[in-house]
Amino acid sequence: MFQSFDAAASPEQGPPRLAALREAMAEAGFDAFLVPRADRFQGEFVAPTDERLAWLTGFTGSAGLAVICTDAAGIFVDGRYRLQVRDQVAEEFATLDPAEIKPGTWLTENVDRQAKVGFDPWLHTVDGITKLTNAIGDHAVLQPTHNFVDRIWTDRPALPVQTVRAHPLELSGEKSSSKRKRLAQELKDAGQRAAILTLPESICWLLNIRGGGIPRSPVVQAFAILHDTGRVSLFSSPEKFAHLGPDPNIDIEAEDAFGRAVGRLKGPVRVDGQTAPWKIAEILEDRAVWDSDPCFMPKACKNDAEIKGMQNAHLRDGAAMVEFLAWFDKEAPKGGLTEISAARALEGFRAQTGDLLDISFDTISGSGPNAAIIHYRVSEQTDRKISPGELYLVDSGGQYIDGTTDVTRTLAVGEPSDAHRDCYTRVLQGLIAISLARFPSGRAGRDIDALARAALWRKGLDYDHGTGHGVGACLNVHEGPQRISPAGTASLKPGMILSNEPGHYRPGEFGIRIENLLVVRKDGESMNKRSRLCFETLTYVPFDSRLIDTRLLGPWERNWIDAYHSEVREKIGGLLSASARRWLDAATETLD
Amino acid sequence: MFQSFDAAASPEQGPPRLAALREAMAEAGFDAFLVPRADRFQGEFVAPTDERLAWLTGFTGSAGLAVICTDAAGIFVDGRYRLQVRDQVAEEFATLDPAEIKPGTWLTENVDRQAKVGFDPWLHTVDGITKLTNAIGDHAVLQPTHNFVDRIWTDRPALPVQTVRAHPLELSGEKSSSKRKRLAQELKDAGQRAAILTLPESICWLLNIRGGGIPRSPVVQAFAILHDTGRVSLFSSPEKFAHLGPDPNIDIEAEDAFGRAVGRLKGPVRVDGQTAPWKIAEILEDRAVWDSDPCFMPKACKNDAEIKGMQNAHLRDGAAMVEFLAWFDKEAPKGGLTEISAARALEGFRAQTGDLLDISFDTISGSGPNAAIIHYRVSEQTDRKISPGELYLVDSGGQYIDGTTDVTRTLAVGEPSDAHRDCYTRVLQGLIAISLARFPSGRAGRDIDALARAALWRKGLDYDHGTGHGVGACLNVHEGPQRISPAGTASLKPGMILSNEPGHYRPGEFGIRIENLLVVRKDGESMNKRSRLCFETLTYVPFDSRLIDTRLLGPWERNWIDAYHSEVREKIGGLLSASARRWLDAATETLD
Repeated sequence: MFQSFDAAASPEQGPPRLAALREAMAEAGFDAFLVPRADRFQGEFVAPTDERLAWLTGFTGSAGLAVICTDAAGIFVDGRYRLQVRDQVAEEFATLDPAEIKPGTWLTENVDRQAKVGFDPWLHTVDGITKLTNAIGDHAVLQPTHNFVDRIWTDRPALPVQTVRAHPLELSGEKSSSKRKRLAQELKDAGQRAAILTLPESICWLLNIRGGGIPRSPVVQAFAILHDTGRVSLFSSPEKFAHLGPDPNIDIEAEDAFGRAVGRLKGPVRVDGQTAPWKIAEILEDRAVWDSDPCFMPKACKNDAEIKGMQNAHLRDGAAMVEFLAWFDKEAPKGGLTEISAARALEGFRAQTGDLLDISFDTISGSGPNAAIIHYRVSEQTDRKISPGELYLVDSGGQYIDGTTDVTRTLAVGEPSDAHRDCYTRVLQGLIAISLARFPSGRAGRDIDALARAALWRKGLDYDHGTGHGVGACLNVHEGPQRISPAGTASLKPGMILSNEPGHYRPGEFGIRIENLLVVRKDGESMNKRSRLCFETLTYVPFDSRLIDTRLLGPWERNWIDAYHSEVREKIGGLLSASARRWLDAATETLD
Repeated sequence: MFQSFDAAASPEQGPPRLAALREAMAEAGFDAFLVPRADRFQGEFVAPTDERLAWLTGFTGSAGLAVICTDAAGIFVDGRYRLQVRDQVAEEFATLDPAEIKPGTWLTENVDRQAKVGFDPWLHTVDGITKLTNAIGDHAVLQPTHNFVDRIWTDRPALPVQTVRAHPLELSGEKSSSKRKRLAQELKDAGQRAAILTLPESICWLLNIRGGGIPRSPVVQAFAILHDTGRVSLFSSPEKFAHLGPDPNIDIEAEDAFGRAVGRLKGPVRVDGQTAPWKIAEILEDRAVWDSDPCFMPKACKNDAEIKGMQNAHLRDGAAMVEFLAWFDKEAPKGGLTEISAARALEGFRAQTGDLLDISFDTISGSGPNAAIIHYRVSEQTDRKISPGELYLVDSGGQYIDGTTDVTRTLAVGEPSDAHRDCYTRVLQGLIAISLARFPSGRAGRDIDALARAALWRKGLDYDHGTGHGVGACLNVHEGPQRISPAGTASLKPGMILSNEPGHYRPGEFGIRIENLLVVRKDGESMNKRSRLCFETLTYVPFDSRLIDTRLLGPWERNWIDAYHSEVREKIGGLLSASARRWLDAATETLD
């Protein structure tokens, strides 16, 4: 099992650790210290050795920042973790929402004038520290320092044992040498001598490698410099790359040589302030040119081989999902399942494919009111029986050698209510509207987000999250810049992969979300002579027809559902056990 | 009749006027001169005395810029006027599209280095000249001068004879003194001593006045200064205001005293660079604070009295439209109507209300392929018979004492084709989707524009214009900042009035557009506790049911059409002649 269901909350460990941290701060002459959730690679998933925020405070969410002052301690988490953080941290920590009070404002209210505020310059981005500096003004002084958590964390887990493998050409679709040549030319054209790469996913994409050892993400943790000659200096553990054989254009040094190597670079050097550690700005000074990570856009726009890999991963993953759904449909009405037993079974079906490298995030397995918690993570403490008359929401995905999946289905257990059917149908109408959208080039996710909400809006309903996030190809399950959301301003481009996941939540009652992954494609027909885009579906898993109120559907929606279900049968049917196949045939019958 | 159908194109007058202009330029030592369509108030509608661009070039469209150099002359018009400009101007003028080549770029290619380029500093905005200066760089020198067109235009029409009337409190909903007090406080809070008002619609809104004499727009042409005391200095023709009686807080001086009065102001003075003449920047120099016209947002967000007036105007106008539709339906199948005779008849029905001040723009009356020309203006030269088997598109509106209307209907003459019905139904589905949208506060027009296109997009169709523009309350039929369009980034706010006008055009074959006006309202029910907005329809005119393919509709669309038609009967039925009433009852029967 990849997923653990331990209740990670041990708030009682916080106060003594907080006291020790304050002592270390004071010894070094600091009045405050910042403890972010991020590691030096700014990834969503961090290794146990980098779980500083969880170790110090008890909070295990995927984003957050603790600000530790001499007489006050605050932990900032966004709205989705508001309830969780209160369960997980001791009362010594004020739980704060950056939408209500900015960390900089809170800090100035809790330290004296001229206070020295320390931060680890590898764990904060250039933009993050710049914003904080502006917010603090001349009230206090932000100062980089060594990490006081690392000083006091005596039983800190070892560095992750990372394995490195080549990501083959049939999956990457382009040789690393070709990618490096392309990007080097781009640097040359811009008069940039080198680019700093601090995101593992960028480096994995550029070098056509993947790794093991970081939970949920197949990246190799490393830093790199791409020179305008196409040469790459890679900073990681050289011995882990030995089995790949030498590449005359790639030098591999130990990770701790990275800072010195950056120091020796001649400018101008391209660096992305949104993601690069503050330390890089400190080293480069006026040699830095602030510009996006050059791998960011080419990685987001998948080529044909990457899309083919994603399609194959989705067929395999879809079959595991259908086996699960068939099993669930047999077991759940008996009343013996719990959220954990269902999540375990689902991971088991994925593992039975024989190709599962990891799950792509901790499965969200919620029944009844728990499904209304958008980022619910089931633990032994919260585990709940799945009972007839309730809805069950399962949001999950797998990491495979050829692709990354992310799929959500909401299922009826026993007889659904009218409210269940009404809301489910409207959410499904939103998913269909995005699936059918064909739009002129240049439109961003923001421009189509409303399509996913219109059926809910008509009844005064909505959901309080974006409609879709970008997804990597055998990389992180969340990537940018593409997204479908009121905040999604990046133009959608062919090859981008996005989730399409409208939902609706009734706190204390039920939650509904339905999610497919889509790839942006050029649309064949001309539209007023302008080029135009559409979506192709990657996910093939049936919807729960018992939850569809056909009286609410337009003819194109009914046709889409029937056509989709028939595609599911064609694409997935042959990959199933006989019993799952029988279940699928029944589940995908033409709508009444 | 307000509308004239003269063919205004007399390209042969261009060359001698161009020669005279070049002579006047050369005498004053200039190498080029700019002739914009705008007058000094930057309005869409200008008085005959300000039709400099049309006089010089022959082009009568509502936006354009001529750049006259010693050896070259170019006229820049946007895509919608591409065909019209070629008919209207002599070949001495190169016809250019600013989307393809910027005026600044073209200018540098057509004058020598260090050339002196003249412009009338009252006719160009601060932002316009700033952009042009940046585009030209150090190649040439932009220099304000007197207007060379005015020098050579010997038979220039007289200034418009403007009448001024009070806009009563039951229509404005707020005393001018209250508006002035509110805005003066805003100036004080911002530390601004005064604001420059150069838009007639802002001044009319602020002073609760309206005027006659400018075609299509009930504004009083004037400039004004709002002081932070709430006092207003108005620059216009004092004698025209005499009958309104004196207001101790409003000083009225002649328009030509405006520049000197601005010169005497103590800074900081608020001025809107997007709309203020360049001359103001020249006078104010560093006393200027660049900020939006303070009347802009309050004018856009109509109060209850303004909305009530708009509703009343729409009932009156809707009845005139229904009389027209009933008449059209009887006459058109006989085959004797033309685009002009239909437009004349429609203006006649509006005039019969007894309250028509003006039409709100020249009626777009297009049959068959002419309806595919989005901004078609019928003239004696282009007039076309309306024949059975064709679609007829009529986009028109009226100016009434209580409101401004703008409505488009597309009508079948005889038996429509399957393509007509398919496209019409999809356009109508777009109108319905916007009408039914209920969305969180903070969303902009951009965020809902796709709803109007989704039914067309599903079939690979679209339209090449925005979905909706702002509309004034007994003011201009086009106003900002609200709009529904991929370029609409202003948040929608309660009280804003917008058009909702999706369309579809098949060049050479047919054109379809359907348009209602809507007002943004607060939505009663809570949506995840956030405040939320919806639309209320102002326009009540039936759709042509013969063009609706009910097989394409979702149940909510069918319900919306039936409910709308029943509202039309209730609201308009009592205002009609007996025959039109009978026609309306038949036309609004429940869909099959």
